[in-house]
Amino acid sequence: MKDKLLFTPGPLSTSPTVKEAMLRDLGSRDDEFITVVKEIRSELLRLGFVSEELGYECVLMQGSGTFGVESVISSVVGKKDTLLVLVNGAYGERIVKMAKVHGLNYLVHSFPENEIVRPDVVADLLKEHAAVTHVACIHSETTTGLFNPIDKIGAVCKVNGKVFIVDAMSSFGGVVMDMKALQIDFLVSSSNKCIEGVPGFSFVLCKKAELLKAEGNARSLSLDLFDQWNGLGKNGQFRFTPPTHSLLAFRQAIRELDAEGGIAAREARYKKNKALLDKGMQEMGFRYYLDHSIQGHIISSFLYPQDPTFDFMQFYRALSDRGLVIYPGKLSLMDAFRIGNIGYIFPNDIEALLQAIKEVLEEMKVTV
Amino acid sequence: MKDKLLFTPGPLSTSPTVKEAMLRDLGSRDDEFITVVKEIRSELLRLGFVSEELGYECVLMQGSGTFGVESVISSVVGKKDTLLVLVNGAYGERIVKMAKVHGLNYLVHSFPENEIVRPDVVADLLKEHAAVTHVACIHSETTTGLFNPIDKIGAVCKVNGKVFIVDAMSSFGGVVMDMKALQIDFLVSSSNKCIEGVPGFSFVLCKKAELLKAEGNARSLSLDLFDQWNGLGKNGQFRFTPPTHSLLAFRQAIRELDAEGGIAAREARYKKNKALLDKGMQEMGFRYYLDHSIQGHIISSFLYPQDPTFDFMQFYRALSDRGLVIYPGKLSLMDAFRIGNIGYIFPNDIEALLQAIKEVLEEMKVTV
Repeated sequence: MKDKLLFTPGPLSTSPTVKEAMLRDLGSRDDEFITVVKEIRSELLRLGFVSEELGYECVLMQGSGTFGVESVISSVVGKKDTLLVLVNGAYGERIVKMAKVHGLNYLVHSFPENEIVRPDVVADLLKEHAAVTHVACIHSETTTGLFNPIDKIGAVCKVNGKVFIVDAMSSFGGVVMDMKALQIDFLVSSSNKCIEGVPGFSFVLCKKAELLKAEGNARSLSLDLFDQWNGLGKNGQFRFTPPTHSLLAFRQAIRELDAEGGIAAREARYKKNKALLDKGMQEMGFRYYLDHSIQGHIISSFLYPQDPTFDFMQFYRALSDRGLVIYPGKLSLMDAFRIGNIGYIFPNDIEALLQAIKEVLEEMKVTV
Repeated sequence: MKDKLLFTPGPLSTSPTVKEAMLRDLGSRDDEFITVVKEIRSELLRLGFVSEELGYECVLMQGSGTFGVESVISSVVGKKDTLLVLVNGAYGERIVKMAKVHGLNYLVHSFPENEIVRPDVVADLLKEHAAVTHVACIHSETTTGLFNPIDKIGAVCKVNGKVFIVDAMSSFGGVVMDMKALQIDFLVSSSNKCIEGVPGFSFVLCKKAELLKAEGNARSLSLDLFDQWNGLGKNGQFRFTPPTHSLLAFRQAIRELDAEGGIAAREARYKKNKALLDKGMQEMGFRYYLDHSIQGHIISSFLYPQDPTFDFMQFYRALSDRGLVIYPGKLSLMDAFRIGNIGYIFPNDIEALLQAIKEVLEEMKVTV
């Protein structure tokens, strides 16, 4: 049985060889596995254009990407610190929920879902609220697919001496990102996104000097970022059982990323996927939710056709029956669906999806 | 390349077919995956001899077993509640750490590592400390391998109207356990233990009436037990990305458990493994850390030979080079190593391990 292709924000389609890397059982304390973990941590730093020598560290955290983001938010913002959360979608809102449940001092600034986080507004906010010590922002907001200008926001943070936390969940590995040049102190992503591994853990790239300040700050045991790093550093082992199979798959995924030509080549493939999708969807008359200038190349939100005959679930299921899985929308005010073009997805897969969408719309007698 | 056999507390050796079930990519919101999750949740209740009809629920939680235990501890003990933690090993201590970091009201009662939690002492404690509302206890303490008498402790809890939380991490699936008969309100175990799946998530079997009280109690977003259950109930989906491949492996593992004859048959295999191990190790002169009467059949702690020539790391590596992975000790006061006999391990594997231990001791010129 052939798997359906996943045009989603993740879990994504992965290569057969990435999955085959899971056909092994390694002991979590055995030398071979410790070597796997070590390799992954150092490779991830390399993919972020940094290294231990440059003063950066990589922490792996069990669970989904949200677990990784929460480990950062709940470990690095101290009792006397204040977090500014920049929100323009559901993933920004999720960080607000974390700040709230952990009783942090925090401020929220919300932008409309179809607008980017504006660096000039951030600069004003930081002037107005001198107590702010940490700033959190989403890079690729999966809610809509927009890219926030983290380079400019990072620059504003640094001028003002703030710690900059970036949720780059759905973009890291699919966008060339230099931690140092972008002035990011903590960057979070996960195993099942653009590196094209399978789910099971998240990873945090961080500036060591800032990480060290998190000692004793954490609000939970499992999500203690400092302790997790400290454990990995002491003996190369996780404090608690790691997802050994996901880690084996991830090491293979990194090797395949390199074989493809690294992040720049992967970014080029995703952009090619996106350009094809754009062209085909526009030809059919679909409209994007976002203005083209702020739309990223990871995932796109398309407005429902105005034809009242259009029924999303019928559309979704007809595509799914053809082996093509798209994604529902998550906008707060408008009806839309999403199509991702990341993962083990190639231009011919995009062509197949476009052809299927055409056929399904005809079957449904929907005019776009 | 053949994998080493893991005589550890987990991750364990698993069957080839369990691992092969991971050779697929399913969308986390697609119908097929939702069916997998539904099947796993209802099968786990069945394995605990309960059901939704009987008023029990199953919650799956991303991350390792510790994440599952912490989700219970930090979600079900309310602000006005008091937790009594019964400790006789490192896993009990871990619950104390959780209580501490979450600022719960809690009491700790510690027993020596080589003694069980005594139900009569628990009864006295509950009389003395009327404020206690919840009691937490480890079933199979992996530190030593002892089994705490959770049946009797559960009875004491119920007589006194306390909520009973059991960490059955390393025993569930390898010991016949009836949630209702044992009077357990929350039982936690994980995917990579006696069900013989791969790591990636933990599961909580719970009495629904008690689970419902946890609404709004949680001290974190990711580990919110009630919200996680509520999300799974609403649309069958996880709130945050699930480890899809681990879940596919786990469904296969449950089917293979049934094919083996269910938990009773698996318990019999593990006991046979244990009996062989006992006989062989005793013949070589090894001494157990625990008294036989409280030793469980999951994992055993053996004291280091008194011969000063014995070097554990040399012993460990020599066995590992032969493809047999044992486990270091975790006792606070004595030097010991551990051998587990759970997972996809059969009597002939135990024989092979015993033979290898004999050879290695001879090579090392160690007298036991």
